[in-house]
Amino acid sequence: MYIHVDRDATAPPYKQIEDAIRGLIERGVLPFRARLPSTRDLASEVGVNRLTVHKAYQRLETDGLITTKVGSGTFVSSRSLRTQTEPDLPGGLPEDPSLGVWGPLFVNPRLATRALPSMTYLKECSASFVYAAPPPDLFPVEEFRHCTNYILKRRGAEVYRVGADASGLPSLKEYLIGWLAQHDIVATERTLVITTGCQQTLDLTRKLLVGPDDSMLLENPSFPGAVGALSPSGTGLMALPVHESAPPLDPSTLVNHQKRCKLMYVTPNFHNPTGLTMPLGRRRELADIALQYSIPLIEDDVFGALRYEGAAQPSLQSLCPRMVIHVGSFSKMLNPSLRLGWMVAPEPFAEQITVAKQASDLHTSTLVQTAMDEFCRRGLMIRQLKRVRRVFRGRRDAMAEALHRYFPRDSRWSVPEGGLSMWVTLPDDMDTRDLLALAQDRGVQFLPGAIFYFSGSRHNCMRLSFATENEAVIDAGIRTLGDIIGKRRLRLIRPATCQDRRAVI
Amino acid sequence: MYIHVDRDATAPPYKQIEDAIRGLIERGVLPFRARLPSTRDLASEVGVNRLTVHKAYQRLETDGLITTKVGSGTFVSSRSLRTQTEPDLPGGLPEDPSLGVWGPLFVNPRLATRALPSMTYLKECSASFVYAAPPPDLFPVEEFRHCTNYILKRRGAEVYRVGADASGLPSLKEYLIGWLAQHDIVATERTLVITTGCQQTLDLTRKLLVGPDDSMLLENPSFPGAVGALSPSGTGLMALPVHESAPPLDPSTLVNHQKRCKLMYVTPNFHNPTGLTMPLGRRRELADIALQYSIPLIEDDVFGALRYEGAAQPSLQSLCPRMVIHVGSFSKMLNPSLRLGWMVAPEPFAEQITVAKQASDLHTSTLVQTAMDEFCRRGLMIRQLKRVRRVFRGRRDAMAEALHRYFPRDSRWSVPEGGLSMWVTLPDDMDTRDLLALAQDRGVQFLPGAIFYFSGSRHNCMRLSFATENEAVIDAGIRTLGDIIGKRRLRLIRPATCQDRRAVI
Repeated sequence: MYIHVDRDATAPPYKQIEDAIRGLIERGVLPFRARLPSTRDLASEVGVNRLTVHKAYQRLETDGLITTKVGSGTFVSSRSLRTQTEPDLPGGLPEDPSLGVWGPLFVNPRLATRALPSMTYLKECSASFVYAAPPPDLFPVEEFRHCTNYILKRRGAEVYRVGADASGLPSLKEYLIGWLAQHDIVATERTLVITTGCQQTLDLTRKLLVGPDDSMLLENPSFPGAVGALSPSGTGLMALPVHESAPPLDPSTLVNHQKRCKLMYVTPNFHNPTGLTMPLGRRRELADIALQYSIPLIEDDVFGALRYEGAAQPSLQSLCPRMVIHVGSFSKMLNPSLRLGWMVAPEPFAEQITVAKQASDLHTSTLVQTAMDEFCRRGLMIRQLKRVRRVFRGRRDAMAEALHRYFPRDSRWSVPEGGLSMWVTLPDDMDTRDLLALAQDRGVQFLPGAIFYFSGSRHNCMRLSFATENEAVIDAGIRTLGDIIGKRRLRLIRPATCQDRRAVI
Repeated sequence: MYIHVDRDATAPPYKQIEDAIRGLIERGVLPFRARLPSTRDLASEVGVNRLTVHKAYQRLETDGLITTKVGSGTFVSSRSLRTQTEPDLPGGLPEDPSLGVWGPLFVNPRLATRALPSMTYLKECSASFVYAAPPPDLFPVEEFRHCTNYILKRRGAEVYRVGADASGLPSLKEYLIGWLAQHDIVATERTLVITTGCQQTLDLTRKLLVGPDDSMLLENPSFPGAVGALSPSGTGLMALPVHESAPPLDPSTLVNHQKRCKLMYVTPNFHNPTGLTMPLGRRRELADIALQYSIPLIEDDVFGALRYEGAAQPSLQSLCPRMVIHVGSFSKMLNPSLRLGWMVAPEPFAEQITVAKQASDLHTSTLVQTAMDEFCRRGLMIRQLKRVRRVFRGRRDAMAEALHRYFPRDSRWSVPEGGLSMWVTLPDDMDTRDLLALAQDRGVQFLPGAIFYFSGSRHNCMRLSFATENEAVIDAGIRTLGDIIGKRRLRLIRPATCQDRRAVI
């Protein structure tokens, strides 16, 4: 409960508290029977003497708005005035008036949207293999704080500037152009756009290029967040197989079709969820199709910098700069909470997407852009990248070893050259959703493979991310999973319902 | 030019610089004839000895990639390898290959988008009446820095959390619920959604509720950023007049129409650009129509807290909680660069918009949310609001007085009770676009009224924002405008072409 007491106001603090709570009750924010905080807690939160709160409570009680029951607390004893006085709807109220009004609007939603799959968290989770993103404890907290502190002191003119460039902070763009050039991507001031994370690039690209009757080619399985952004209604998706022996594409299926393919989306490096790297042959094949049939190709390279071994393949952007929309982000090197990414695309498209971005959020927060610019320019991004590469490599090896030790012989996986997760295929008679239900009881979490498929779902796969737990926890968690699988105690138990909206990353 | 030198690498610094520049030239980032920075400048930027850069330049020159001309500098003397080796398009190249590929994709863009109107800045602008947003120098720089520093030190777990709630940081939501309750808006944890600024709310709402064949009712004139977000293609807009003697609405025009009205959008307090406050009668009328015909009503209250005198009218949300989408932001109290706002809507819609928001940017940056939460909880938002109210009131009065003193008798304006701009109507024979061209020559800028109309544009109106300049500058700037108008030197001169994408706010 938030109450602001204004020391300069004419009304004394107890009266301000009284009025605020009265308002909250009258407007229904504090509903009938809601419990108020103790006088001690509220006094400490608001920053007043406990007697001040006591006086406010007493006056509210005298007016019949609240009741104090000795030993159990203080409760709202009045109903909201608002609900009592709200005007009747013409023609009588349906059962739930709110749904009565809004429900019909959603019967045929314009662009249906799908929530990302999410997980209900256990109170005590001893090993989470859920998130494919760096955990907060790998964040260089002090260095980032110094950068933020510095820019707020010295670069205020940039941070608080009104009317910033929708395509991004010039100084951060300049840094990224150099960074990308060292990573096989050609960007210029006019082809690079800073975004509020990769999710925004996918959302805007779909908005600009794909109509309701068009289709897209996506790897199957794919990251559900990308699928949700590209096809909010879940329609128009054509599956591109990702296993290593996948057959060549037949371009005629993409163009000789009523639902003509308008966009291709792939993650060539350390594909999410399978961890696979796209072979050069497939890269060339996609580049050729993109160029020959004028189908834009999104190269999601969000994990690209997290390579632990092996030589990098040429980027799709280097093979086909004219048709590729290259997507990158700080999320997997540093942390996804900041919401900062970029896009490199042919100039006409970069220009269009900048306009669409402006309509969507004006520009990305300059506080975040300036802080990251400082962080990069101090060389801290390079240092961070080295650190996480070392840590993640160790965790990947620990997971590979644990899988080898504890998982049944007839399960399969390969050790990815980079990225943040492993993709495990269990024997055919197992269902990883059932396994998850049993694992959660023992404090272990992962993502069942089924949520990554938009067609032809596989029941016996799972994504195990090694980003967030240390080697010992990884070993213990995989051992627990192996133990459960070994006992084959797999019954058809549905996992707990999804309740919160935390994204699977 | 950005080059990172890695001290731990095996290659010596000069070699790293050489390789980086070679890469930039080969990839065409540094084009033929581009000028390189001086050895002194590059050395200082990269943080190496000047001789190190000199050595790198020498080696590049030996290889024929660059040339140094004594007295004029160092230039790229080789063409990009990439352009030379890029494969030919089948069927021959059109003139501009990039446009040849992307051009056709935009002939019928899915959702056409319109850039916000923007202004080419003068090198020396002595008085700007363009931005209706607090200028950076009113930002409580030190206090905000302390808050950010504190949260990065103490609340890192929240700031760097992976998979944050798409509907917003719980602690900031709790604060806002209390704040809104004290400002006549009822919000709960389930009806309040934190957004990446108001622009995002408008964009997502249109996405969910308005189809290509639907129409919307908007005030005419309106803020062009809102028009761009609600109707990217510029179609389906029905004009709601905003002058004080506007006639009552005929609801039949909204519903008995092929393009049925699916959304109403108004700014009841200190309307942008006119500064008018919507009278109670009109508020009730809109609330009744919203409820009776099930048409959602957006209440953009972004200026609401900036009231300098007079009593507040009831919010539309309080009159019609079931159909109103209430939109607010920190942009006008503090600064728009942070990109942080909120939306309060009936629960089913708040739920839908949260899902759509997740697809659009996962969640709003938690760094920004947590910093603002701390800033609010320390009582600094209240203090800031008091400060800007005092300052803006003084500036409004200075502008009103200057207009009275310097503007011709036959021009009209009214003094707004709040908000950040005044709306001036000049005599009929004047065109404010011509006035702007003349004013810019004398260092004064404003927004001509025409850009705020989506139909029936008026040529003799102008928006003068008083937010960014102090009283003396306001007086001098208005005097200059009055002087130009007085001389009636108004010829049909087109203003300079818009070149940058800075938003008009």
